[in-house]
Amino acid sequence: MGEFDLIETFFKRPARHATLGVGDDCALLPVGTGQQLAISSDMLVEGRHFLPTVNPRLLGHKALAVNLSDLAACGATPKAFMLALALPEVNTAWLSEFSKGIWNLADAHQCDLIGGDTTRGPLNICITVLGEVPAHLALLRSGAKVGDDIYVSGNLGDARLALEVFRGQLSVPQNVFEQARLRMEMPTPRLALGQALRGIATAAADISDGLLGDLQHILKASQVGADIETNQVVGTLAARAHGNLPLATQLMLTLSGGDDYELVFTAPESKRADIAALSVSTQTPITCIGKIKGSQQLRLLDSQGHEMTHAFQSFDHFKTD
Amino acid sequence: MGEFDLIETFFKRPARHATLGVGDDCALLPVGTGQQLAISSDMLVEGRHFLPTVNPRLLGHKALAVNLSDLAACGATPKAFMLALALPEVNTAWLSEFSKGIWNLADAHQCDLIGGDTTRGPLNICITVLGEVPAHLALLRSGAKVGDDIYVSGNLGDARLALEVFRGQLSVPQNVFEQARLRMEMPTPRLALGQALRGIATAAADISDGLLGDLQHILKASQVGADIETNQVVGTLAARAHGNLPLATQLMLTLSGGDDYELVFTAPESKRADIAALSVSTQTPITCIGKIKGSQQLRLLDSQGHEMTHAFQSFDHFKTD
Repeated sequence: MGEFDLIETFFKRPARHATLGVGDDCALLPVGTGQQLAISSDMLVEGRHFLPTVNPRLLGHKALAVNLSDLAACGATPKAFMLALALPEVNTAWLSEFSKGIWNLADAHQCDLIGGDTTRGPLNICITVLGEVPAHLALLRSGAKVGDDIYVSGNLGDARLALEVFRGQLSVPQNVFEQARLRMEMPTPRLALGQALRGIATAAADISDGLLGDLQHILKASQVGADIETNQVVGTLAARAHGNLPLATQLMLTLSGGDDYELVFTAPESKRADIAALSVSTQTPITCIGKIKGSQQLRLLDSQGHEMTHAFQSFDHFKTD
Repeated sequence: MGEFDLIETFFKRPARHATLGVGDDCALLPVGTGQQLAISSDMLVEGRHFLPTVNPRLLGHKALAVNLSDLAACGATPKAFMLALALPEVNTAWLSEFSKGIWNLADAHQCDLIGGDTTRGPLNICITVLGEVPAHLALLRSGAKVGDDIYVSGNLGDARLALEVFRGQLSVPQNVFEQARLRMEMPTPRLALGQALRGIATAAADISDGLLGDLQHILKASQVGADIETNQVVGTLAARAHGNLPLATQLMLTLSGGDDYELVFTAPESKRADIAALSVSTQTPITCIGKIKGSQQLRLLDSQGHEMTHAFQSFDHFKTD
């Protein structure tokens, strides 16, 4: 099967948003009046972002999900994506499953595949997503203000828990592992939440490298600090109730786990009722985990409100990447 | 050097067109009123699109050039690009040269680097370019009409000649090789020509896989055929005058060589004066190589106007990829 057959078979469909999709030199996309284009690219490499044994349908889902998560963090509405694929061989069974994983998620968000590239090479998946956000309403990292509440969506740490079980570093009951594994393999981009936060959140980022690392991007861009209530953070770990995990492990997983694809965002206290309401309307659990401070420091507080000295540095350097 | 340092050092600059460039979850790009967005992605893999020994500055140029060539083929004006890089190691000397090659070409076309991704992995360069084209004026592959003239820009076949010399398959004088090598390593995206052809050309494509293959995309999309005057085509080979190449080799190089990054386009006879004028104004050599026919066949004609039977199939299957 040649390059063009491969595209025709697995990746060509009529586009909804685009004027011109797969099959010309460029794709053409109209952008609405008063809208800005939001764009993000992520590259996934075998052995680094996924194992060679990964289920290709789940891989297709995840490759698009991590990109959509960036649109969510900006409050953008997905419109279209480009898919560039390097494949060591043309394996039609693999491609069929991989494309199903992509299409299922793309269809759920009415996001069109409008173009891309295919070539032989070590397995590499590069997706660029394109979304729209009304001008001046994009959620940036730079808008956090002293006194703002800090929130996270959904569950943190479960994806990393599954990875550590795979690696033989942690052990949990099978049903806890299965749930955590789903979080690792099928992350949920928080698109409805991101869009609902327009005009409410002052800053937002998606959590891909671990809460502390991604929160620090917000703090640096906004030139502020933060106090984090770690007992609120560990409470977001779904596996907590049945996993029999020591507190230190819970802290590591939730603060520095990575691969969560949840949102961390800030909002003034005056927006608390709005946030409670949009948690319901978007069916997204939201947890307040701390406050923005003027000190330009990130402090971790224990359940008594005392600073956990020395704790921060070790979590900050515990990285997956 | 970590991921974020690498971006700060080599790839972060203030953006001109974008509201928000490198350093947030998404880049934000305003799109002008009445304009459509034109988007294209190309992925370059070591060993397939370039040799491990390639000069990194030339590689940076080429990686962006092949993408800009797709914008040229649509008549779009470049605005911005996303760069995703998988690197086996962080080699600062290599990255410095690679980024210079990219910046020099990007600056020449006022095209901003607005985001992307970096990761460890087998060397892979994936660029997505974003341009603007007035609504309804994009050059498509599907507009060629019976009776249209067929044109190509610049020189064909020289890039492939250099490759065959590298491979030891052809031999030419050193100065001829040096010129051809420059064509292979530093292709010129025909952006000014593409923009000038808006409203004049009926169809266009860029020549990346070889003239016949890319012309066939136009014929298929437009549901037409073509007669090609091969003596006009071989006349575009810059190395022809001094290369002592047999006619069969000249035909192979120009008809099926690939890696030319010139434009092939069609226009009605009534536009001949316009095309002569824009050849001058854009400083681009343009050669008329044939006519669009209703037969849905692609016929190659020799210098006496006789069809070269059996010739087509062999050229069509002589592919670089």
